[in-house]
Amino acid sequence: MSLAADVIKKMTERSLTLATCESLTGGGIGAALTSVPGASAVYRGGLVTYARDLKSSLAGVDEQLIADEGVVNELTAVQMAFGTQRRCNADWVVATTGVAGPEKIDGVDVGTVWFAVVGPKVGMSPAPQYTELTRFEGDREAIRGAAVEHAFAMLLRVL
Amino acid sequence: MSLAADVIKKMTERSLTLATCESLTGGGIGAALTSVPGASAVYRGGLVTYARDLKSSLAGVDEQLIADEGVVNELTAVQMAFGTQRRCNADWVVATTGVAGPEKIDGVDVGTVWFAVVGPKVGMSPAPQYTELTRFEGDREAIRGAAVEHAFAMLLRVL
Repeated sequence: MSLAADVIKKMTERSLTLATCESLTGGGIGAALTSVPGASAVYRGGLVTYARDLKSSLAGVDEQLIADEGVVNELTAVQMAFGTQRRCNADWVVATTGVAGPEKIDGVDVGTVWFAVVGPKVGMSPAPQYTELTRFEGDREAIRGAAVEHAFAMLLRVL
Repeated sequence: MSLAADVIKKMTERSLTLATCESLTGGGIGAALTSVPGASAVYRGGLVTYARDLKSSLAGVDEQLIADEGVVNELTAVQMAFGTQRRCNADWVVATTGVAGPEKIDGVDVGTVWFAVVGPKVGMSPAPQYTELTRFEGDREAIRGAAVEHAFAMLLRVL
């Protein structure tokens, strides 16, 4: 069974919903999730914030953060995830921002990807949030494919 | 060269931007576009409105239309496209809504897909809009894959 199917199964059993906010993966995480029959019980949809300005205008990332730090950093990934959680009314969100190549972005090396996974606020506790930084090897498609699989592996670890 | 690469090439040459609004394809159109190096000159991103309510809350489809007619129909596809054009500030948008299976949706047969492509308003003329209805054969993955390719073929025809 694929990792995407594992995510759908685990979240279906726990009655949890999921949304996505994708930059370098461009929709690949959503495409893999929706390849699983029954995905609609879990997957709500999401935002593809490929262009820099859509990370702010759609997902609500602070424009000054992007002006100061660029788009490939931990806090941008976290803000993409929380913005999407609100926009899509989902329990959990996974967000990706990174450099698929062939060129660097904002001086950041090809293969660098930040992931954020955020969950629902329960009671007085803050909403859970997890971040991971990876440096994938290979060409554009290898990096993007590895990023999609990493997103599912990370979700399965933290859920 | 892939159809996605043909779309990126043609739109780059004409300095046009593109966004996507995907339901049954779940991000597959965006993923294919962003597999093309240089996609960022054209592709802005988009909305994955997989859940019924996100078609209204994210893409601005009339809730009453969905209540009356369901989610797989021509006008829903058109409204998804125009809503995404506004949200993503793109020249052109392609939108998909259909039934990947294994179950019917709103009584509509598996394999039925509505596509809408909308373009920019120029001067006093109304914004261009094109719609197509297809009935694809095969299983869930065959239908979704065919829908992604059809979206690119339709874009290349109308541009």
